[in-house]
Amino acid sequence: MRWRLAGVATRRNGWVADADGLNPIAILNGHFPSSTGPQPQNFREWLERSRADVLFETSSLDAQTGQPAIDHIRTALELGAHAITANKGPIVHAFRELAALAQQVKKQFLYEATVMDGTPIFSVFPMGLPATELRGFTGVLNSTTNVVLTEVEKGRSFAEAIRRAQALGVAETDPTADLDGWDATVKVAALAIVLMGVPVKLEQIQRTGIRELSEEKIRSCRAAGMRYKLVCRAERRGEGVDCSVKPELLLAGDPLANLEGTSSAIRFDLDVFGLSIVEHNPGIDATGYGLLADFVRAVKIP
Amino acid sequence: MRWRLAGVATRRNGWVADADGLNPIAILNGHFPSSTGPQPQNFREWLERSRADVLFETSSLDAQTGQPAIDHIRTALELGAHAITANKGPIVHAFRELAALAQQVKKQFLYEATVMDGTPIFSVFPMGLPATELRGFTGVLNSTTNVVLTEVEKGRSFAEAIRRAQALGVAETDPTADLDGWDATVKVAALAIVLMGVPVKLEQIQRTGIRELSEEKIRSCRAAGMRYKLVCRAERRGEGVDCSVKPELLLAGDPLANLEGTSSAIRFDLDVFGLSIVEHNPGIDATGYGLLADFVRAVKIP
Repeated sequence: MRWRLAGVATRRNGWVADADGLNPIAILNGHFPSSTGPQPQNFREWLERSRADVLFETSSLDAQTGQPAIDHIRTALELGAHAITANKGPIVHAFRELAALAQQVKKQFLYEATVMDGTPIFSVFPMGLPATELRGFTGVLNSTTNVVLTEVEKGRSFAEAIRRAQALGVAETDPTADLDGWDATVKVAALAIVLMGVPVKLEQIQRTGIRELSEEKIRSCRAAGMRYKLVCRAERRGEGVDCSVKPELLLAGDPLANLEGTSSAIRFDLDVFGLSIVEHNPGIDATGYGLLADFVRAVKIP
Repeated sequence: MRWRLAGVATRRNGWVADADGLNPIAILNGHFPSSTGPQPQNFREWLERSRADVLFETSSLDAQTGQPAIDHIRTALELGAHAITANKGPIVHAFRELAALAQQVKKQFLYEATVMDGTPIFSVFPMGLPATELRGFTGVLNSTTNVVLTEVEKGRSFAEAIRRAQALGVAETDPTADLDGWDATVKVAALAIVLMGVPVKLEQIQRTGIRELSEEKIRSCRAAGMRYKLVCRAERRGEGVDCSVKPELLLAGDPLANLEGTSSAIRFDLDVFGLSIVEHNPGIDATGYGLLADFVRAVKIP
């Protein structure tokens, strides 16, 4: 498989496109090339100039609108490029439209990196598990709350635990989206929409963050062999699906109770058996790997 | 997807083939059709008469030779049928030959049901995890020893525990292959051969069964928060792979320690992250599902 980097668009360093190829090592070392010719006026112009076969969409999540990622992906597919994203917004707000467009233009719209990094979740369905019915799932899908709860168990205050998660590079500068359960809620929606075929809205998901938990209670439960985790649940109910994200007290023997650090896990309840997938101790490169894996799947000769 | 049953070959009820189709419900209800015309003289004649597009090979395991399953699969591929098996023997003794033959005749040779029933293990590689290196794996892959160890923990003797596993339909009448670690050893070999590309021989795998464990020690460890499990390990070492099957004492927090009943689990050590897959409480239909899933994968329009 051969590739070249035909364009880079960043928030801070500007946009550059060259269909003949850019030097990725130079860019990684901080030498952002100065543009030749007039600057592209918008995303479409930039992508046209790159003549890219594949777009990697890694803009920040806007949970309320899914933009601008939706427009980026739509434009890529319209221009005949595969669209690969690590952004959950387009799944939650425009999955059917983008999947239909991809099918129409015979390009791939792939998003494995949106949940549990590069772990095969979306890729396992349908061909890993054909002819099954997915009745629901249970998961621990947010690393920041995992790290924070573990640190509080060890005796730190919430504030200290959050600083520790930030120092580890797990929590963002503003940890609100994680602590209030937004990140997990968006993941639940993405999984239910794609894997269960139900167009769940974020406001239909019951959401409780971990801020209201008592530090004392977290520690006393831990001493008694139980652990709080921010648990994600979805259960098919008629045509719809009941979803929730909330702190739950788990027995120590529960596989979800033993997750530490950046590890995450999901259990799928299938008609034929239960199936759990656990990702152990991924680093930031695991998300990059998810994009790479989608790239290989998109361009492989079938 | 439409299908018809073109032949059945059994140890007890004889062999029948009809390319126009047999009635599976009648056969399941004990009405084995009397053959029209002369009986087929051998496997090839029977399969030719069926004109099958797909063979399901479910003969019993012969761990030492892999026969007669290898001959059955070879014949099916030669006659232009996809070959799907739940028998580990052909993987351990003839994987390269059969995989090469399948590629040559452009038919599928699939074997998902051989390890962890229908759980996607072989199916996850390579396209669920492209561009990764598998460094090794750890698993609990044998249900009988799992059930027996749990029953001994609860206070039963080994003999009683084995009878209990037999009553549950988990252990065979002769539980030797399970208790002495043979079943697990064959699974380790199959995984190492297919997923790690190393032609491991059964005699190269260090194998210790659970018979030598003391009932007293199993119970006292359980009381102290630890559990014995028959653990399967493989670790890449240069061009080869070090493999073992032996009872190991696991901490209660270890995901492998919490497996009960027919559940099994495997953890893959990949260069990019660790990935565990757990199958919860499968019944006997889970093996059937593995064959069905391979069938869908074999005949699907790509």
